[in-house]
Amino acid sequence: MYIDAIGFIAAILTTAAFLPQVYKIWKLKSAKDVSMTMYLVMLSGVCLWGVYGLIIKSPPIIVANIVTALLLILVIYFKIKYK
Amino acid sequence: MYIDAIGFIAAILTTAAFLPQVYKIWKLKSAKDVSMTMYLVMLSGVCLWGVYGLIIKSPPIIVANIVTALLLILVIYFKIKYK
Repeated sequence: MYIDAIGFIAAILTTAAFLPQVYKIWKLKSAKDVSMTMYLVMLSGVCLWGVYGLIIKSPPIIVANIVTALLLILVIYFKIKYK
Repeated sequence: MYIDAIGFIAAILTTAAFLPQVYKIWKLKSAKDVSMTMYLVMLSGVCLWGVYGLIIKSPPIIVANIVTALLLILVIYFKIKYK
């Protein structure tokens, strides 16, 4: 039970981490220094982590990677929009 | 066995993802658009994922988060150096 709690806190942190980056790009209307390659590779990895989470039946891994994927798609969208 | 393989590929992708960002900052000598908050929150989360990996005895989670932590520290160092 406390194991899932640790996983969920970790998941909240590594997922929420992308929020200030999304906000910063939106505020500056610039993503020049942000690496597009990073976010594309990260998105592939996060999708595969989701699969891994499903197989080992780890709720924090599954939920975290779905939310993270959405935030990554937002960064990729902003990167295309603002360059 | 194949479960660990999926986890390891996912781990390689989400870890390697930070490499192009490290390279980009180093090349541009600029990290203006990169969010420091993101990397500090991410580092806390990655440390906690390491703890989670140790508890559930998941080799890909443990190894991935150690390497990711090192790359995050590099981005944070560059962010301080190049602003």
